[in-house]
Amino acid sequence: MRASVQTKEVRDAILDATDLLLSRYGYKKMTIDDLAREVGIGKGSVYLHFSSKEEIVLSHIDRIVDRVKEDLEKIAASKAPPEEKLREMVLSRVLIRFDNVQHYTESIDELLSSLRAKVIERRKQYFREEAEIFAGVIKEGQKAGEFAKGDADEFARIFVTSTNSLLPAGLSTQELGERSHVRKKALAVCGLLLKGLTNK
Amino acid sequence: MRASVQTKEVRDAILDATDLLLSRYGYKKMTIDDLAREVGIGKGSVYLHFSSKEEIVLSHIDRIVDRVKEDLEKIAASKAPPEEKLREMVLSRVLIRFDNVQHYTESIDELLSSLRAKVIERRKQYFREEAEIFAGVIKEGQKAGEFAKGDADEFARIFVTSTNSLLPAGLSTQELGERSHVRKKALAVCGLLLKGLTNK
Repeated sequence: MRASVQTKEVRDAILDATDLLLSRYGYKKMTIDDLAREVGIGKGSVYLHFSSKEEIVLSHIDRIVDRVKEDLEKIAASKAPPEEKLREMVLSRVLIRFDNVQHYTESIDELLSSLRAKVIERRKQYFREEAEIFAGVIKEGQKAGEFAKGDADEFARIFVTSTNSLLPAGLSTQELGERSHVRKKALAVCGLLLKGLTNK
Repeated sequence: MRASVQTKEVRDAILDATDLLLSRYGYKKMTIDDLAREVGIGKGSVYLHFSSKEEIVLSHIDRIVDRVKEDLEKIAASKAPPEEKLREMVLSRVLIRFDNVQHYTESIDELLSSLRAKVIERRKQYFREEAEIFAGVIKEGQKAGEFAKGDADEFARIFVTSTNSLLPAGLSTQELGERSHVRKKALAVCGLLLKGLTNK
């Protein structure tokens, strides 16, 4: 038990250092040596947790999406009305990602070319998992008679697809502009979708 | 008159060759010499039309979006009901882009890192122009009493934003998957938005 807590702590410390060094140096220039030094452990200890720099960065991205999913689950389980939950969930998936990468500069763009295929593959999985949580809330709203009848999974995928262009591409918010604008756009899209969903 | 027709023809021939060579070699490996040879003109003649390889590729992207805009204008001016027009327009902006880049392989991804900032800047302009055409049709539907009252420009931006994740990123359809799936997703998003727009 104690050992596994430590394992999780070291793992998290490595990923925290990854976040810092990615924003400072970018992907290509960041080395496992830098990471080990930043955490205050040996290089060998890093390799006990991760097999490569690529795996570290993918795990770092996974951790951001884990935060999104945790927050989505929390909102889905709350007492708010389904319509309000969906609005909060859209903001959550867009803004948690934004906040977690907005300190990166252009230098991070290079990540895309080397890791592109793997990141794309993972994104599909992320989106599926997020859509599942949305579907739960939509079913709840349908049961309560607040939402139109229809395929809740399909409705959920629509919420995800239609806000995907508001997610940071390649760990950069550069294409998205100001956080407040991104928030406004997410609310606007969600608003019209909700109008559709409550149109019985 | 004749001279400007020829100018347009040569320009188009250069951009056609760009399309071919981008799919064959990718951006980095394509040279102005290759382009001149493919068109059957001298290298100097290419420079009469374009100042750099970068400008050629940006013009090539512009031409794809010009095709989208022409098609959107055509649909907007047609006799179909506004709701039907919006559906066709969503499919047009998504699928014309898809069809124009689907023959590119991964090699084109490298384009992103070198031209990224300029492409991003242009995309904002493209999206503004497309949204204007959507807004015209939405106003028409509002006048006819078919759509909810409200800011037509805002509704138009929602249609654009919520289908932007279905556009090819970096001249590659790799992230999008099958054309038929992309089409289905675009129709699904558009369907719920239209339900919202007709919810008065």
